[in-house]
Amino acid sequence: MNLNNIRIVLVETTHPGNIGGTARAMKNMGLLNLFLVNPKSYPDPKALWRAASANDVLEGAKVVDSLDDAIADCHFVVGTSARQRRIPWPLLNSRSSAAAISQLPENQRIAILFGREDRGLTNEQLVLCNVHLQIPTSPNYSSLNIAMAVQIICYDLLIESTKSREIEHADKDWDSPFSTQADMKRFYIHLEEALSEIGFLDPTAPRQLMPRLKRLFNRVRLDEMELNILRGVLSEAQKLARKSLDN
Amino acid sequence: MNLNNIRIVLVETTHPGNIGGTARAMKNMGLLNLFLVNPKSYPDPKALWRAASANDVLEGAKVVDSLDDAIADCHFVVGTSARQRRIPWPLLNSRSSAAAISQLPENQRIAILFGREDRGLTNEQLVLCNVHLQIPTSPNYSSLNIAMAVQIICYDLLIESTKSREIEHADKDWDSPFSTQADMKRFYIHLEEALSEIGFLDPTAPRQLMPRLKRLFNRVRLDEMELNILRGVLSEAQKLARKSLDN
Repeated sequence: MNLNNIRIVLVETTHPGNIGGTARAMKNMGLLNLFLVNPKSYPDPKALWRAASANDVLEGAKVVDSLDDAIADCHFVVGTSARQRRIPWPLLNSRSSAAAISQLPENQRIAILFGREDRGLTNEQLVLCNVHLQIPTSPNYSSLNIAMAVQIICYDLLIESTKSREIEHADKDWDSPFSTQADMKRFYIHLEEALSEIGFLDPTAPRQLMPRLKRLFNRVRLDEMELNILRGVLSEAQKLARKSLDN
Repeated sequence: MNLNNIRIVLVETTHPGNIGGTARAMKNMGLLNLFLVNPKSYPDPKALWRAASANDVLEGAKVVDSLDDAIADCHFVVGTSARQRRIPWPLLNSRSSAAAISQLPENQRIAILFGREDRGLTNEQLVLCNVHLQIPTSPNYSSLNIAMAVQIICYDLLIESTKSREIEHADKDWDSPFSTQADMKRFYIHLEEALSEIGFLDPTAPRQLMPRLKRLFNRVRLDEMELNILRGVLSEAQKLARKSLDN
């Protein structure tokens, strides 16, 4: 596992102190790549104060307007979540997530997302993720401060990264590169379009169809060749649908 | 392990915010007993603010004048230490300390000591301890915020105490049963048929298409609802293909 390929993404963080605390928590564990999606107040002296000697991580943070901009080039996206959502997603604890990440090829880019302090990630943000991560807590008080959550997860990543790597990589000898978030986003747009053209998806009553399909394909992590096959199938079906409209 | 018999002892803490952060970190992991030895500023609104919903832990904290008063009735004392001291001591990391504590009889009282922010525990305080605990960090920045250190140690204690009760669901809470080999076999027959009807698969030159699709869907392990969605899409595409033949 290469900690340099793991980024922490804070989405719409409200308190600048938490951004500083996150930077310090990261650097303490050897993680240096911080992305801030629409922070409420940044830069801010409170962030700098809490960052202590991690001001370099803070100053190197990339501030972006949308979550897409923060994860488009990533191969594996982990969403932190404090509670169960309507559609169950592959759910790992912090330690198992670190173990799962250590199984990925070293050159893949990984993002770990943290939502706003008061509400966490939205359902729309959570469906972008390959897995969800929940930190074990006391049932009596499960609401962790965000910088504390970052601290625990980065700690587990550091521990995992220093374990001797004896297990063979499942992915190492794969015959096609794995797709990025940007690839997947284009695929989902194509999928939704095609399902609606062939009359399988009713845009006025979509129900849980797209979230379910996203969960399915995010579980598997498509490689580029598989993505091309699926898009080929969709295009073929679209041709038939358009032809049937012409007649 | 009984978390109620483990106390966190903060010695001469300088920043009240760290006391509040410690209270929250403890309660998040199910630890409730906090001792404060000569805190510089306590009570303090900053402590209360950082404690969030752990104000009960904060208000229940025992403030004492000397470290002796905080640990006299304890059976096992752990001293946190960021660096090697002159006299080598039994030194464990956070996870091994939790494992060691879990080996003690449940009714023994355990204290975990944290020194002043700027200098840690003194040598005189460290010699009172049964073991020393060092949290693994990046060699480039090993100075953890004290509440963060408490968070990591309490996290490892909680994990150790709940080892049998894992939060991850492999499959247990999934919302649809997983499909069987027989289901998958029927699905692949349907898939091959449909791809050939819509003109995407040429039966005379199938290349590696079906093996690749099988590898994809076998990686993911489809649940029954997903299987039905996919078969629904295939049936819809087949209808269009048949319609187009009729015209």
